[in-house]
Amino acid sequence: MALDKQTTAKREFKVVGTRPLRPDGVDKVTGKALYGADLTAPGMLVGKILRSPHPHARIRSIDTSAAEAAPGVKAVITHADFTLPDDEDMRDILVNCMAFNKALYDGHAVAAVAAISEAAAKAALKLIKVDYEVLPHVTDVDEAMKPDAPVIERGRQAETVGEGFSENVTSYCEFGHGDIEAGFTRADHVIERSFKTEATHQGYIEPHACLATFTTDGKADLWCCTQGQYMVRRVCSAIMDMEASQLRVTPSEIGGGFGGKTTVFIEPVALMLAKKSGRPVKIVMSRSDVLRASGPTCSSSMDVRIGMTKDGRITAGHAKLRYQGGAFPCGTVEMGAMAAFAAYDLEAVRTQGWNAMTNRPKQAAYRAPGAPMAIYAVESVVDELCQHLGLDPLDVRLKNAAKAGTKASYGVTFTDIGLSACLAAAKAHPHYAAPLGPGQGRGVSCGFWFNFGGDTCVTLNVNMDGTVSVTEGNPDIGGSRASIGMMAAEELGVPFDKVRTQVVDTASLGYNEVTDGSRVTFAVGLATIKAAQAAKAEMCRRAAMIWGIDAEAVTWEDGCAKPSGPNAGDFPPMTLAEIAAVSSQTGGPIAGHHEVNADGAGVSFGVHLVDVEVDPETGATKVLRYTVFQDAGKAVHPDYVEGQMQGGAVQGIGWALNEEYIYGEDGRLQNAGFLDYRVPVASDLPMIDTVILEIPNPGHPYGVRGVGETSIVPPLAAIANAVSRAAGVRLTELPMSPPRILAALDAARPKAAAE
Amino acid sequence: MALDKQTTAKREFKVVGTRPLRPDGVDKVTGKALYGADLTAPGMLVGKILRSPHPHARIRSIDTSAAEAAPGVKAVITHADFTLPDDEDMRDILVNCMAFNKALYDGHAVAAVAAISEAAAKAALKLIKVDYEVLPHVTDVDEAMKPDAPVIERGRQAETVGEGFSENVTSYCEFGHGDIEAGFTRADHVIERSFKTEATHQGYIEPHACLATFTTDGKADLWCCTQGQYMVRRVCSAIMDMEASQLRVTPSEIGGGFGGKTTVFIEPVALMLAKKSGRPVKIVMSRSDVLRASGPTCSSSMDVRIGMTKDGRITAGHAKLRYQGGAFPCGTVEMGAMAAFAAYDLEAVRTQGWNAMTNRPKQAAYRAPGAPMAIYAVESVVDELCQHLGLDPLDVRLKNAAKAGTKASYGVTFTDIGLSACLAAAKAHPHYAAPLGPGQGRGVSCGFWFNFGGDTCVTLNVNMDGTVSVTEGNPDIGGSRASIGMMAAEELGVPFDKVRTQVVDTASLGYNEVTDGSRVTFAVGLATIKAAQAAKAEMCRRAAMIWGIDAEAVTWEDGCAKPSGPNAGDFPPMTLAEIAAVSSQTGGPIAGHHEVNADGAGVSFGVHLVDVEVDPETGATKVLRYTVFQDAGKAVHPDYVEGQMQGGAVQGIGWALNEEYIYGEDGRLQNAGFLDYRVPVASDLPMIDTVILEIPNPGHPYGVRGVGETSIVPPLAAIANAVSRAAGVRLTELPMSPPRILAALDAARPKAAAE
Repeated sequence: MALDKQTTAKREFKVVGTRPLRPDGVDKVTGKALYGADLTAPGMLVGKILRSPHPHARIRSIDTSAAEAAPGVKAVITHADFTLPDDEDMRDILVNCMAFNKALYDGHAVAAVAAISEAAAKAALKLIKVDYEVLPHVTDVDEAMKPDAPVIERGRQAETVGEGFSENVTSYCEFGHGDIEAGFTRADHVIERSFKTEATHQGYIEPHACLATFTTDGKADLWCCTQGQYMVRRVCSAIMDMEASQLRVTPSEIGGGFGGKTTVFIEPVALMLAKKSGRPVKIVMSRSDVLRASGPTCSSSMDVRIGMTKDGRITAGHAKLRYQGGAFPCGTVEMGAMAAFAAYDLEAVRTQGWNAMTNRPKQAAYRAPGAPMAIYAVESVVDELCQHLGLDPLDVRLKNAAKAGTKASYGVTFTDIGLSACLAAAKAHPHYAAPLGPGQGRGVSCGFWFNFGGDTCVTLNVNMDGTVSVTEGNPDIGGSRASIGMMAAEELGVPFDKVRTQVVDTASLGYNEVTDGSRVTFAVGLATIKAAQAAKAEMCRRAAMIWGIDAEAVTWEDGCAKPSGPNAGDFPPMTLAEIAAVSSQTGGPIAGHHEVNADGAGVSFGVHLVDVEVDPETGATKVLRYTVFQDAGKAVHPDYVEGQMQGGAVQGIGWALNEEYIYGEDGRLQNAGFLDYRVPVASDLPMIDTVILEIPNPGHPYGVRGVGETSIVPPLAAIANAVSRAAGVRLTELPMSPPRILAALDAARPKAAAE
Repeated sequence: MALDKQTTAKREFKVVGTRPLRPDGVDKVTGKALYGADLTAPGMLVGKILRSPHPHARIRSIDTSAAEAAPGVKAVITHADFTLPDDEDMRDILVNCMAFNKALYDGHAVAAVAAISEAAAKAALKLIKVDYEVLPHVTDVDEAMKPDAPVIERGRQAETVGEGFSENVTSYCEFGHGDIEAGFTRADHVIERSFKTEATHQGYIEPHACLATFTTDGKADLWCCTQGQYMVRRVCSAIMDMEASQLRVTPSEIGGGFGGKTTVFIEPVALMLAKKSGRPVKIVMSRSDVLRASGPTCSSSMDVRIGMTKDGRITAGHAKLRYQGGAFPCGTVEMGAMAAFAAYDLEAVRTQGWNAMTNRPKQAAYRAPGAPMAIYAVESVVDELCQHLGLDPLDVRLKNAAKAGTKASYGVTFTDIGLSACLAAAKAHPHYAAPLGPGQGRGVSCGFWFNFGGDTCVTLNVNMDGTVSVTEGNPDIGGSRASIGMMAAEELGVPFDKVRTQVVDTASLGYNEVTDGSRVTFAVGLATIKAAQAAKAEMCRRAAMIWGIDAEAVTWEDGCAKPSGPNAGDFPPMTLAEIAAVSSQTGGPIAGHHEVNADGAGVSFGVHLVDVEVDPETGATKVLRYTVFQDAGKAVHPDYVEGQMQGGAVQGIGWALNEEYIYGEDGRLQNAGFLDYRVPVASDLPMIDTVILEIPNPGHPYGVRGVGETSIVPPLAAIANAVSRAAGVRLTELPMSPPRILAALDAARPKAAAE
């Protein structure tokens, strides 16, 4: 896969852009890496959680006496052991981890035990008597919004929501500019469609696991698999009513997160069990627990209306998004509303978003949270307009593409962005010109993600043996030990194998935002480069001291301090290793540090191209060919950029075709396992081809943009558009599983015959 | 215990000098703290070491085949698995951990196994066949120096040693100034005596323990109880031929070290077993292993000659010190030679030191290494001179005491030191005037230690909840989490309970010297104060940003940023917590860092006063009353300063009266257990009273000096002087165990009768 040389940053890199071996790779493939469930402690107990079988039920009482008396049981807890925090967000997180007055969804935790063995813990769970008053429930977003819907919790509705909705509708948001009605009037054709998408799960291979210890004087240690040890510390210390510095959180290796490990589900329970029992407590979720009671995506119901001129100019766009994010208020729809039309340079655009509470688990982030559904709806309508007007879908997108100077629908004005470059690359790619067979269709879609920066701290230590340790506070979920180490090596001018990047516990660095928002390679990279620059400055001072010249007269070049100016050539350059070896004699250890709330992350765009074949007899869709075009700003380690692009595409394919939360009439999740919740496996997929574009992000010294999330956005619409062209029917509900496609084909046939 | 107010530093402290609860105290007394042996890992193997039963033997061959084939055995290693490092020190450490061509002492490791259980490992050890050629051995220092002694290893003798010694004598050192023969001529009385002391062990309650994991791509993690994780990293990475940054060392809590955990004994063995087996390996030493094969003190043989005028002026001093430090070259005698006369302001002084190798385990540091024996000899002769001349031993010491401006026998010129203050405090103390009963005697002795600084790194993070995390790289062996946190709190102006001090692994900070030399409260404290100052400066910048004024116009006072100068009073002060809460909005997390090779540690002096009663029938000595006077510079946490003073006194009492390594004719250690190696227990001791003097160390912002080591120095001579006065016989060999005292009394009786 060749990089597009024309768009690569001017700077010549030595390490950045190469493909060294992943530092944690061997550990992971040989099974030696320690994940959450691998941690143990002396005297450790097994923690188990009792979960509600009802989607909505008042908890009249919980009788734990028999469980407490059972052999081997060291602690039993319920909500009564916790105090509700003042902060509303913290309160919601706690109540999600342990139900208070009501069970709000199938699988909601209502009690927990810690016992000396798995068997003893399981036996004790059966002895807990919960007196439930079962209440009416609602799991569908449209149903939940109706004025007469069962109300999950009163008093959570924002004033801005307005009339006509149930109390489940908690928030409303609106973005846009221009006169959309005037825009629709200018259009030659307007299409309005309604869409629904189901909740999907991140499907990380490692269920949540943690080990908590608590001392009698109020300090605690927590080991867990998480995307953010500092977030865990902040949330758990608030819930446990302790100071942040009294809790140390150490992240294990992480077997996937994709946003689903950006909050806590079991950690406060383990901490409370440890506090009450006085012993270390480990909790490991089962797959069923994960699916029932961790955080899937929002499901959605959406209306999109777009107007277009005959020559493919979009005159106006309007999207109404209704998301449900489970039993607690949720703001994800806002990101959907901001992202919906981000790919387009529009004179008139309006997006509206409503969130509704339902009797489902609290949603969690999942790669570009909120964006895939919104953009699926918009890109489906754009595609249908192209079909209707006989226009090339890439030409239309190129004509309307957001670019530097575009005022986005959510208010910002873009600087250098890579959408047009991605569209042009897709247009020029052999894939786009390849012939299609009968029953096959080609779909295209744009994708977008904001990308985050945020609080970030890095320490870089120059060891006396000439190696360099970079200390970061973000779990490595996508190869960041490599990308961060490569940027340190690049900046210092040393080979990559002289640098080791370590992810440390919360005691060792200041606050680091969660590993999310595609922020790590951007923000931690930025802080690493700054820390390396500080270390270089210090090494120049040490060299100046050794040479007896002014520090200002020393420059850093190719991994060496060199005398410059009037002293140029007076002394041979000193390497990093030489300076490090004598650091003790020149003042002590050499380090560089940087703390920053990083901004300038730089938005990211991608374009996906997919060919599918739909089997009209079974309704099964086969993905034949798939190509991802995405702007990485600068691809630090192209393998991992490609991996992110491929992984996002695969997860999006699953979302488009097969994955969904299926709730029965009884409000219980019917497919809480990987046999029934079907993620795509290798045999379902073609090789996902990738084309990395590099339009440097002006907010990063090396031009880096986040790459991890944009790739999950386009597949939903790209597949839907391909299916539509292959099967001749437009699917407006996800997933486009065989039964839904067959139903759509069935519905289309008599209609076609009647026409 | 009241502090001497007159000598306390002028500065008013709010936190420093108070006595908050120890942060790790509850964990430790409730057994929750995790020590070396408490660590586990999935799939962990048990490592066991086969040790030589011979004090000196050539290893002709080692047959490990039967052990390798034994059930459950996953790895067997011998020296053949290691490569000798180029560096001589590293080579000695390795050869001490695993014998190469010869077993050099009883208990020397010759092979090791890793197996799935303790039983399997023990069984496998019995299957290893070592073909030994037993060689003549020597364990006594004087015997080892004789020209015809069995030679431990050829080619280790320095050129400076001179003629007339065996090759076991590896080094010679000499210190002093002035014409000693002229000095002796000026004396009214000269006494010369010879002394011997036996090796003693630190007697830490926790045997060495470690857990090693090794990945197939060459990275390793090591958890161990140690006084210095960075030292372990440096040594083990050199021995394992890997880069420092590829090895992460995490220190467990430590159950005592006292210098004995400043090197490695089992860690390279565990690493090699882990590398070979591909599984985590834990090794835990038995008490017998600890006594036979970890590092006790040097034993010594010494001649001291001192001249004194009638009015108590010392005219000259000369000490010849011969130390054996086991089977490897050792430089401890040098510190003894430097320390011997450090308490005195002398015109003529000379100290000479020789090191000899013997068939004993390699000595390790033990609290003020090398000083207690040398000062025992000097202080015994000073005391005998006082007796002979009828002078008060404190008056004589006051008259000759080193003070600011004194050129010490080892070459430095002292600045402000606290010896005279300690002597004056002892003289004025009720203890010195208390009457003694029959058979009782009072002894006095000075003590001295250099105190170290060295490479030190500290990071201080200001958390958003207004708490502060201090990150240090030195295991807490004496309460340093408290003392370091207190200095951070003092400097920041926040309460101590807002600060949490964490000891971190080697990945998180730059190089930190070992926790030794009484360096931590001085050097880490210094770096902590500097890091806090950096954080304060940053907080002033943030406040200035919030107020929209110049950063220079903001000062830090009482835990708050305050506008000053022209802006004074324009804004209410902002507390640390208020600034921290909005740090993300003002640029990101707030931290302070400091890396330094700290100098200016400030020497430490103490004076011990002891009353004993000797039972002439049993030879048993009872310690009746004991008072320690010591200059702490500034006592950060007086409880722990007192604890150090008491602990050192107790260990010195053990050294003086009971503790010794007893080698049989066969060269085997006869008392490798706490039943036969007798440390003093509570019932052996009176309350050890303490008087802290505070003569500020000009090299530290708060005046702090190290306090941990000086206290072990005086007890040997103080007890000997008291015994001498109680029993009427002068003991010149340690320990003064009942048999030795009885023998001395027996030897004195007929002589007295004959006179």
